[in-house]
Amino acid sequence: MEVPWERLIRFVATDGRVLHGEPILPAPDFDLGFTTSATNLKAKIVEGDDLYSAAVCEDIVTVDRLLGPLTPKDVPTLRCVGLNYAKHIREAGRSPPPFPFIFFKPSPTVHDHDAPVVIPKICQDDQADYEGELCIILGKDAKDVSEAEALDYVAAYVVGNDISSRKLQRDPAYAGKIPQWGFSKGFDTFAPMGPCLIAKRLIPDPDALQLTTTVDGERRQYESTSDLLFGCRYILSYLSQGTTLEKGSVIMTGTPGGVGAGLNPPKYLVPDTQMNVHIEKIGTLRNSVVFA
Amino acid sequence: MEVPWERLIRFVATDGRVLHGEPILPAPDFDLGFTTSATNLKAKIVEGDDLYSAAVCEDIVTVDRLLGPLTPKDVPTLRCVGLNYAKHIREAGRSPPPFPFIFFKPSPTVHDHDAPVVIPKICQDDQADYEGELCIILGKDAKDVSEAEALDYVAAYVVGNDISSRKLQRDPAYAGKIPQWGFSKGFDTFAPMGPCLIAKRLIPDPDALQLTTTVDGERRQYESTSDLLFGCRYILSYLSQGTTLEKGSVIMTGTPGGVGAGLNPPKYLVPDTQMNVHIEKIGTLRNSVVFA
Repeated sequence: MEVPWERLIRFVATDGRVLHGEPILPAPDFDLGFTTSATNLKAKIVEGDDLYSAAVCEDIVTVDRLLGPLTPKDVPTLRCVGLNYAKHIREAGRSPPPFPFIFFKPSPTVHDHDAPVVIPKICQDDQADYEGELCIILGKDAKDVSEAEALDYVAAYVVGNDISSRKLQRDPAYAGKIPQWGFSKGFDTFAPMGPCLIAKRLIPDPDALQLTTTVDGERRQYESTSDLLFGCRYILSYLSQGTTLEKGSVIMTGTPGGVGAGLNPPKYLVPDTQMNVHIEKIGTLRNSVVFA
Repeated sequence: MEVPWERLIRFVATDGRVLHGEPILPAPDFDLGFTTSATNLKAKIVEGDDLYSAAVCEDIVTVDRLLGPLTPKDVPTLRCVGLNYAKHIREAGRSPPPFPFIFFKPSPTVHDHDAPVVIPKICQDDQADYEGELCIILGKDAKDVSEAEALDYVAAYVVGNDISSRKLQRDPAYAGKIPQWGFSKGFDTFAPMGPCLIAKRLIPDPDALQLTTTVDGERRQYESTSDLLFGCRYILSYLSQGTTLEKGSVIMTGTPGGVGAGLNPPKYLVPDTQMNVHIEKIGTLRNSVVFA
């Protein structure tokens, strides 16, 4: 399916309104993640209740600051693929799963670009972690879809960060002998996405994009999505078997090696940590961290 | 919170309309799960966009057949507690988890009472299974709620059946070494609920209800919710830490011993299997099985 826009942002305009828009890039390679009020970014307003058929208007406004392109009400659920890059599988001490390993994040995890991720008391244990990921946005319901037709259901891509509490996820003292993937990654604000949705037609091959995660200026993750064990088409087809993937749903495709838990010694999120997840052709998702 | 109705059903009326209603019980102990057109059940129509504030009208209609009280659009997500009854933990060969073990089922799993559960091709492997469960329905958003105030957020209870594919859930050949709880239980129709929502005020103690699951006339599960390792108040409080449990969300509290996988030899679902899950004071949820 095709969406009417190329890039979709949600933003506070200089007149205070919160709007969706098609940004007018100041340069062809401009990274929207670094938009500030000083950038003087302009955007055409995008109007309509349905993000995936919303029309680009000719009204042009100035962006004061970006929010995330999606809010919790836009996303029925998030499906995530664990252990989907070879290096990350090794750092987690696992062997490659024979099929995509799936967990869910609920809607209220959806969070803005350039807003602090909130680490709640239950996981303020120095084991909160980042995971930079390429995310797929479904533009229409998909069920029993073949690999060949999988991308027909994709509206757009976005950069995401699958925030995770490693202690709740895998410490037997907290979760018993069964890893708690959904719960440990399901807290409010734990799925920031941005800086923009990028229409599928601008990404001819989602399985060949360079992903780079930088934490406090240090490069931690640097891998191509070509290293995905299961690529976008396969994941979408597999997930849709017997299951309605609802329009607006997000699929987080997995994270490469270099998460905080995989470093020696591990480095976890602390208040004011700055996380930048960059994917080429899409932009940079920036988030800080607060404990609250 | 209090809802305006005592029992909420969704049904096809004899005039063909699909309605919500407050049933007029033919006898105080009438089990709504056994309503048929021959029962000649009457109901007052319940009207309003919001199920939890919808008013009971004086218009009385005749019920032709019950549907489930909830549809996928009514339920943002389902959170489920695994391994929450001592006997089921033993039959699964596990030790009790120190905290509630949580997984998610997505909205399209929500399914009607008295309708066949559809086992899709991906799990037609003779390892599909039933799990009778007491379900909690949130009537308003809950976040960071204490155990003492937890039930303030509950609107109603309902009987549920957490349909599960054991092969996809735990067979290393299908899921690697990490159990696939969300995926293996997340197919469309895999969370039938009914026969009615029952208002919280009619259930003074949700942690003392007898649950009985009968499969093809054979009693398989027979346990009181007093055997729950983590009771309703604790589960709700734990799940709400750092997390918005959205209004309309369902919490499935866990299943007791006696699932098909725990029998010797195991007995899994086949086409035309009849499953009845009864919880005292609520009624009997009835579903058959089709492979499609």
